[in-house]
Amino acid sequence: MEERLRQILAEDVGQGDISTELVVPAGITAKAEVVSKDQGVVAGIEEAEILLESLDLEVEALVRDGEEVERNQVLFRICGDARTILSVERTLLNVLSRMSGIATATRKVIEQLQGSGFKTRVACTRKTAPGLLYFDKKAVLLGGGDTHRLHLDDMILIKDNHVSLAGSVRKAVVKAKEHASLSKKIEVEVSNIEDVMAAVEAGADIVMLDNFSPKRVEKAVALLKKKGLRGCVVLEASGGITSENVVEFARSGVDLVSMGEITHSTRALNMSLEVMPVKKGRST
Amino acid sequence: MEERLRQILAEDVGQGDISTELVVPAGITAKAEVVSKDQGVVAGIEEAEILLESLDLEVEALVRDGEEVERNQVLFRICGDARTILSVERTLLNVLSRMSGIATATRKVIEQLQGSGFKTRVACTRKTAPGLLYFDKKAVLLGGGDTHRLHLDDMILIKDNHVSLAGSVRKAVVKAKEHASLSKKIEVEVSNIEDVMAAVEAGADIVMLDNFSPKRVEKAVALLKKKGLRGCVVLEASGGITSENVVEFARSGVDLVSMGEITHSTRALNMSLEVMPVKKGRST
Amino acid sequence: MEERLRQILAEDVGQGDISTELVVPAGITAKAEVVSKDQGVVAGIEEAEILLESLDLEVEALVRDGEEVERNQVLFRICGDARTILSVERTLLNVLSRMSGIATATRKVIEQLQGSGFKTRVACTRKTAPGLLYFDKKAVLLGGGDTHRLHLDDMILIKDNHVSLAGSVRKAVVKAKEHASLSKKIEVEVSNIEDVMAAVEAGADIVMLDNFSPKRVEKAVALLKKKGLRGCVVLEASGGITSENVVEFARSGVDLVSMGEITHSTRALNMSLEVMPVKKGRST
Amino acid sequence: MEERLRQILAEDVGQGDISTELVVPAGITAKAEVVSKDQGVVAGIEEAEILLESLDLEVEALVRDGEEVERNQVLFRICGDARTILSVERTLLNVLSRMSGIATATRKVIEQLQGSGFKTRVACTRKTAPGLLYFDKKAVLLGGGDTHRLHLDDMILIKDNHVSLAGSVRKAVVKAKEHASLSKKIEVEVSNIEDVMAAVEAGADIVMLDNFSPKRVEKAVALLKKKGLRGCVVLEASGGITSENVVEFARSGVDLVSMGEITHSTRALNMSLEVMPVKKGRST
Amino acid sequence: MEERLRQILAEDVGQGDISTELVVPAGITAKAEVVSKDQGVVAGIEEAEILLESLDLEVEALVRDGEEVERNQVLFRICGDARTILSVERTLLNVLSRMSGIATATRKVIEQLQGSGFKTRVACTRKTAPGLLYFDKKAVLLGGGDTHRLHLDDMILIKDNHVSLAGSVRKAVVKAKEHASLSKKIEVEVSNIEDVMAAVEAGADIVMLDNFSPKRVEKAVALLKKKGLRGCVVLEASGGITSENVVEFARSGVDLVSMGEITHSTRALNMSLEVMPVKKGRST
Amino acid sequence: MEERLRQILAEDVGQGDISTELVVPAGITAKAEVVSKDQGVVAGIEEAEILLESLDLEVEALVRDGEEVERNQVLFRICGDARTILSVERTLLNVLSRMSGIATATRKVIEQLQGSGFKTRVACTRKTAPGLLYFDKKAVLLGGGDTHRLHLDDMILIKDNHVSLAGSVRKAVVKAKEHASLSKKIEVEVSNIEDVMAAVEAGADIVMLDNFSPKRVEKAVALLKKKGLRGCVVLEASGGITSENVVEFARSGVDLVSMGEITHSTRALNMSLEVMPVKKGRST
Repeated sequence: MEERLRQILAEDVGQGDISTELVVPAGITAKAEVVSKDQGVVAGIEEAEILLESLDLEVEALVRDGEEVERNQVLFRICGDARTILSVERTLLNVLSRMSGIATATRKVIEQLQGSGFKTRVACTRKTAPGLLYFDKKAVLLGGGDTHRLHLDDMILIKDNHVSLAGSVRKAVVKAKEHASLSKKIEVEVSNIEDVMAAVEAGADIVMLDNFSPKRVEKAVALLKKKGLRGCVVLEASGGITSENVVEFARSGVDLVSMGEITHSTRALNMSLEVMPVKKGRST
Repeated sequence: MEERLRQILAEDVGQGDISTELVVPAGITAKAEVVSKDQGVVAGIEEAEILLESLDLEVEALVRDGEEVERNQVLFRICGDARTILSVERTLLNVLSRMSGIATATRKVIEQLQGSGFKTRVACTRKTAPGLLYFDKKAVLLGGGDTHRLHLDDMILIKDNHVSLAGSVRKAVVKAKEHASLSKKIEVEVSNIEDVMAAVEAGADIVMLDNFSPKRVEKAVALLKKKGLRGCVVLEASGGITSENVVEFARSGVDLVSMGEITHSTRALNMSLEVMPVKKGRST
Repeated sequence: MEERLRQILAEDVGQGDISTELVVPAGITAKAEVVSKDQGVVAGIEEAEILLESLDLEVEALVRDGEEVERNQVLFRICGDARTILSVERTLLNVLSRMSGIATATRKVIEQLQGSGFKTRVACTRKTAPGLLYFDKKAVLLGGGDTHRLHLDDMILIKDNHVSLAGSVRKAVVKAKEHASLSKKIEVEVSNIEDVMAAVEAGADIVMLDNFSPKRVEKAVALLKKKGLRGCVVLEASGGITSENVVEFARSGVDLVSMGEITHSTRALNMSLEVMPVKKGRST
Repeated sequence: MEERLRQILAEDVGQGDISTELVVPAGITAKAEVVSKDQGVVAGIEEAEILLESLDLEVEALVRDGEEVERNQVLFRICGDARTILSVERTLLNVLSRMSGIATATRKVIEQLQGSGFKTRVACTRKTAPGLLYFDKKAVLLGGGDTHRLHLDDMILIKDNHVSLAGSVRKAVVKAKEHASLSKKIEVEVSNIEDVMAAVEAGADIVMLDNFSPKRVEKAVALLKKKGLRGCVVLEASGGITSENVVEFARSGVDLVSMGEITHSTRALNMSLEVMPVKKGRST
Repeated sequence: MEERLRQILAEDVGQGDISTELVVPAGITAKAEVVSKDQGVVAGIEEAEILLESLDLEVEALVRDGEEVERNQVLFRICGDARTILSVERTLLNVLSRMSGIATATRKVIEQLQGSGFKTRVACTRKTAPGLLYFDKKAVLLGGGDTHRLHLDDMILIKDNHVSLAGSVRKAVVKAKEHASLSKKIEVEVSNIEDVMAAVEAGADIVMLDNFSPKRVEKAVALLKKKGLRGCVVLEASGGITSENVVEFARSGVDLVSMGEITHSTRALNMSLEVMPVKKGRST
Repeated sequence: MEERLRQILAEDVGQGDISTELVVPAGITAKAEVVSKDQGVVAGIEEAEILLESLDLEVEALVRDGEEVERNQVLFRICGDARTILSVERTLLNVLSRMSGIATATRKVIEQLQGSGFKTRVACTRKTAPGLLYFDKKAVLLGGGDTHRLHLDDMILIKDNHVSLAGSVRKAVVKAKEHASLSKKIEVEVSNIEDVMAAVEAGADIVMLDNFSPKRVEKAVALLKKKGLRGCVVLEASGGITSENVVEFARSGVDLVSMGEITHSTRALNMSLEVMPVKKGRST
């Protein structure tokens, strides 16, 4: 993690923060505060601490990952070499803003569901910013969501393209079941009610109802209950789920809704860093 | 670039795409199409080609970076090993969706300005997704925007925190001027009209008017003209600029507006990949 | 994968294969054969092909991963630059020998069980050579075994040390159940029969019976059956299982036995590479 | 070294030790002990310390690399963050077990030889686990053996395949002698007694008698003595040497025996880590 | 930076400093001094401190980067593990010697110019040792020179080969002007006086007079002054500039002279490290 | 090697060669020639080919590594994408210029010695540009020199600092002899004639006479001959050897002279690349 953050910082900085080197004398100690300019759920605190401490800056976090903050609330106090603080500013804020934006979006959906009396889980998908899988998923977790698969080796998830190459939902699940490690769950994406049944009967652990309307979800749930199979399987609704319709989906009886938007199209939470000089001294 | 894309893919995949390995036989050749589900400006085509070709897949791009596409337009045709196509699907779409989303947002602002008869440039800031500087900035360029600084070593940009540590705008610019390489431009962020003058007189190449209202921008422009200094400096407006007020800023006489939102809070352009099997054969 | 193999090769070679450079002229094309000196199950063929092709050598594999070979059977024919073949020889053989040794050991146990009429699965543990997780686990898979967890983020596996820190088996499972992603299975290691029941009742997907004798396993199985809970859980026996007693464990009714020895203490399968020169020519 | 160990740990862990994160609260300090479950020679202590200290764990090593330990002897005491200890457990034990297994096997052979009154050196070969050259060779050294070549650029070692491409043993040695850096020794592998003489006369520093029986070794030694050349050369026996026949080889008069088995087919020394919680507190 | 220095050290060391390990006991603390054997300007002090501190050695620097030192002046005092000091010796001295050699050569030229009453800037080119761009350019800076471009993305520098592919100097500058980010300066290399005018009129920020004699430079300056354009452009002389003729170039009226020799053909400043043992003790 | 060269290129290029992208249209094929502007021995041809081919450029080398070239001789013809050629130009020339400069300097010394009738070998030291060990040493080899140690693990070289920590030359050599692998040579640096004897008697393979005058070297040689020990040891002279006095050192009877200057203070060989456009076409 530290290495990853340092790499992001290195890309940001290039060969050196020449503005700071030219304008700010070496050896000045400064204090700084990171302030949230929006209200929301903060995430990225742990990453921020790792990044700042790896640069020998003192950090005092005033909030914890997953907490709600008000507009203009101070998140961190930082103390150390002024040049270092200025050079890391943008990287630090970019990490915090993105992760907090995602955590905030996730929390909102969950509160919406809880407000309507549902315990349905909210998961993200693998539709993240490229290369930000870890950050985006962790932010979802801190917002209260389910991270779903992290990499492709996490669980067996048989999607439409797999099914089309394997022949049928049943064939695909049976094939996976036969060879997969007992340590992995098997999920399959289906597009009609017959395939829901085929999937459950073939032993899938999770069935993803892709682009089902809440009505069709209800039908599928009813049919499973009738056959006594509802308890054997986790049902996930996916595709076209937004804050407008998520409660309806929850009402339809699924265990889990997954939403791409919370990771691929979130607004960043606005943050800023303000510096003030403290005392002069020769830096080492 | 290829290395960077492979690294993103590697993070996505983990130890192997077990779903595909269990369900899809080795040695099947497949064809696939990447389709845009939204209308917008595409970006990431070059990156997609590099990624796919590095995996020995044949690619035929039907559009070029920076072109506008319609909903449901096919962007690529891909042909090659079915397992490979399935494993790269998500990484590929994540790159294309994000970059195209940013290019689309950038283009929109530019067209809005041009529609009102302005040639004002539109720049992004360094508020990108963490670690995606290159991708985000390139997408802005393809949308028609100005990439501004890439890294911190690109130009000298003296921000509020630098000024507060250096003492004054004038002192900061003079100091930079004295020691900076002749190959670099010097930009300084100012928050009042006096500092605009101080900056220009000290020899700044670009002055960033931070959180100025269009009215105050106009005033600054008028004052510079009166002193015969308007031609010596590029003026940039920054802070709180949105599609609602961007035309007003253009009208105020700046050369450049910079907007954080086009990179830190854009909606991804929705894309999908559809696979169909072609022929069987033992893969090498 | 290619990168990993190149890295291993690079460590082997250092700054250059000086023996070869001094003794073998540049530009000679040679043919070579890789021969198994032992009888067993081969693994590492795919890795070998990737490695050799990445060095622009032509490879013809005469066997497939997971096949049984006889003593002195030829596995590959290689053709290309003589110096390159000599430089890669040891790395190539080390990969093939280790992976084939592990596949052979795994297959032996499985055949022993099948010979006694059992379908019990055989899994490896994470006790591999350091850094060889991927290679060792893949070899187990090719031998017919279950790879169990690959990394620590694969599934939730609550071990004795976790239980001791969490307070009890029940508390640990409940805690995991509450927060874990629905995409993950939960396994817990137990050391007595009460904890087997606690684990199953708390909803563990897999229970690992650590250092149970076959007798105690039987008792646990009987108790679970009596309570109608045998169908809800996968049972794994672990600790002290060897080829002497593995059949007894299978007979006791577990679904899975896991054995550290097949990865941490296997004999390598003896292999050799024999070179013969073909024609001279100036290499590019 | 630290980097290498961290990389192995990273592969083990994947995106995070989810079991530990779910079950063990953050901020608990724990103590742990690493215990050897077998009797043998320990190796890997230095690597273990580097790994543990790089994770900010306190370590107290109770034994030193190369010392003999009894069954159930405590090797280390560890103190620090409970989650960190649990996450590093398997990587730590894998390094210690493999290295100690190799050191133990090496020491056994040496003691066998010394018990029979021989000072013959025992060397390993480059037949190590792939990518573990450094670890395996260092373990041999700690067991008292000779590490022989580390990489291919270490010394000039002309093997059968080189000879066959160069034309003859004599030609190969002469060619090497002419161009090699004076800083390198030249060794050549020979398969018959004529070639022993050719090698020594051409100026080889070391001659490797490949697959010679002890009888043929004796003959070669006698012939060299007769010609007054025994003092000019180091003789190494290689191929088919096991603990059954190693004393016989020593008796035959070689300076060095090399054995692939001590690195490619050793049993790991069984080790375990036991954790106990100490006190609670918020972790940083 | 630290990572880069560790990588250079790692290449130097290979698998371990065997000489030191065999001859110097573990756990000895030593003191050492780095002494300059030549008179000159030191550079690399910061890099040396980073490298030494990353190895847990105590360092006391007695001079600062850019200071002049006398022959036999002590630059550093180092204290710490004797083996570590010996292993890092060569890497440390290589960095210091090269950087100080370059800083010294740069300073000499600048003093020569100042001695003749000129303030002309002295820049290096991108003709550095391969891979040492950062070190070489920083040394020039410490010597008092202008670093010019660091990477190719720093500024727009249109060279002869660009011009020949674009058609003409004017076309090339116009094209660049139209699309370049406002944050970048545009420089163009010209080989005759007509192109100087074309370049300035097209809006180039800097014009590089390639292989102009001082006479022709003077002519170009005169012509620009006559047209009232001298103030709009920075003039750089490049090609064939040596300490023999540099003053003449300065006299001709350019703002900047650039010289490849100060980075591609400098003499290293001779340095040595002397060790003395202090006290024995077991190293950790 | 390819990876290393790509890394150097990447550092040179930064985020992209913006000058070329702005000025040179995509899809133009160009031809180019690399020309030596000085007379000398070329080195770096193999590296250049690897670099250029890795960028999909066609290369035709007209000379071979180690050949002598005249001023203005064409070394390479290159054909391919114009933008790529321009972007790689500087990296390519920097590699060739430095390596050829070193090879030329090495060859000159050797020819000087041969002209005086001596076969004394010429070696470089480890005083290279930091991080360029491999390139610098290979250039020495191509110039006809001896590369001496590559890394610290190559041979045992006991230097003055080692001796001072070990107690005496004799103690240091004996200690090394006892524990070193039989595969390594042992060299020791000595500063007086008594220590030459001590070193040879203790069994050193090579003795380095540090800062001996030719007179004292002769004395040492005479004494060794008298004791019948001259044949047992390689003698190396080191320290203060220049082209002025190297023949005198050769005459004194050493086997090897080592000179730091050929790697740490060489002049680069001047090279240039000239591009001409060929035909237009859309690049892929």
